[in-house]
Amino acid sequence: MVQLREDERLDYLLAEEEIRIIQSPTVFSFSLDAVLLGNFAGVPVKRGKILDVCSGNGVIPLFLTRRSNAQITGVEIQERLVDMARRTMEYNKLQEQVDFVHGDIRDMPKLLGNGKFDMVTCNPPYFQTPKVDQLNENEHHAIARHEIHGDLESIVKSIGILARSGGKVAMVHRPNRLIDLIELFRKYKIEPKRIRLVHPKHDKEANMVLIEGMRDGKPDVKLLPPLYVYHQDGTYTEEMQEILYGK
Amino acid sequence: MVQLREDERLDYLLAEEEIRIIQSPTVFSFSLDAVLLGNFAGVPVKRGKILDVCSGNGVIPLFLTRRSNAQITGVEIQERLVDMARRTMEYNKLQEQVDFVHGDIRDMPKLLGNGKFDMVTCNPPYFQTPKVDQLNENEHHAIARHEIHGDLESIVKSIGILARSGGKVAMVHRPNRLIDLIELFRKYKIEPKRIRLVHPKHDKEANMVLIEGMRDGKPDVKLLPPLYVYHQDGTYTEEMQEILYGK
Repeated sequence: MVQLREDERLDYLLAEEEIRIIQSPTVFSFSLDAVLLGNFAGVPVKRGKILDVCSGNGVIPLFLTRRSNAQITGVEIQERLVDMARRTMEYNKLQEQVDFVHGDIRDMPKLLGNGKFDMVTCNPPYFQTPKVDQLNENEHHAIARHEIHGDLESIVKSIGILARSGGKVAMVHRPNRLIDLIELFRKYKIEPKRIRLVHPKHDKEANMVLIEGMRDGKPDVKLLPPLYVYHQDGTYTEEMQEILYGK
Repeated sequence: MVQLREDERLDYLLAEEEIRIIQSPTVFSFSLDAVLLGNFAGVPVKRGKILDVCSGNGVIPLFLTRRSNAQITGVEIQERLVDMARRTMEYNKLQEQVDFVHGDIRDMPKLLGNGKFDMVTCNPPYFQTPKVDQLNENEHHAIARHEIHGDLESIVKSIGILARSGGKVAMVHRPNRLIDLIELFRKYKIEPKRIRLVHPKHDKEANMVLIEGMRDGKPDVKLLPPLYVYHQDGTYTEEMQEILYGK
């Protein structure tokens, strides 16, 4: 049983028949980016603590419950999305494993403590804040997509404090911010260890970057084989089918 | 006509029937890395000035004469290699287009002037200098492979001074130095603009990185489709055949 608002749907999480997620086309629906980050992150499997920041409707925590028994905390600044995320976890009987904090990522070190997490995941807003009059989306979409509450630097800085020494940080972003992201990782003592480029097709430039670093890690990055989303004919590649449908 | 020393060979440059290069197994032979950098760099075609530092036996300048009419200067610290490179250019009647300077990259801004080059290429020594007693190679190989004369930072710093504002810098390196390289590019005002990963096969991690930046450029990097060297069966991919044999 679950209470749904008028604009909400109870969607399937990918091809899972048993796991569902509350979404709303007018507020927030999860993206392929979140799914790929949830798949990429090298999470602790049996125990430990995972933090997902910029959590939206909780899609990454939900996805990670399929891969890990760790305690998962989601942080989201939009109260409406926290409410959706909490109802999703209750629906799936996952409220023991996953909890949510409503607040600003920049306040989380004070609230959650320094160096407490084995893994921090983050699918941040992608776009630098444009002038206000160019923000012609509704407020929910604008906050999810633009760096309104915290720019990339303040997010990475907070994440670097929240991850324990030796703990991991995994993020997804657009290629045009990769250089900034690498510079910020280094600045806040998160050493990049794994990078995977996502290309829509074999002959196309990457349109997404997955990056994982280790707090206080030693320099030695691995550049993984790329992930292709589509074959030339527009059908999903075998790897994407595996990620999306588990086969 | 060309004078060859006892340990030298007059090799073909790839499948070129007319261009030859002096090499020596005991001193220096060019690598695939140099060929891929020569292929990757977005050189000025009709005119302009190109600088190739850590030039070895001049393979990259030689390769670039096939793609560009620009004036090309090679810088190399090993006198023996400069001598080989000069004889190679004379043999190919390219001494008008290509000249070499014998010296330390760190002295080149003083010698060649600041901001004079439209493109600077560099296939640097890959390995950080080990303790002296671990350097059990001959001196020529050691200098070509290890950061003995100038570490990566002093090389990038010099290159950043030598390139004109708006000019390009193209380098090849091992993946484990990509993060350092990006950090150093930014530090010395070379904004990364194109990155291409080279994977030995489709399912393998990258073992080489090609990166091109622009002096004083605006942030916006393109992550190109990867380059695969071999098919799964060990034969060269079509793209590699094209690069190596021009077909």
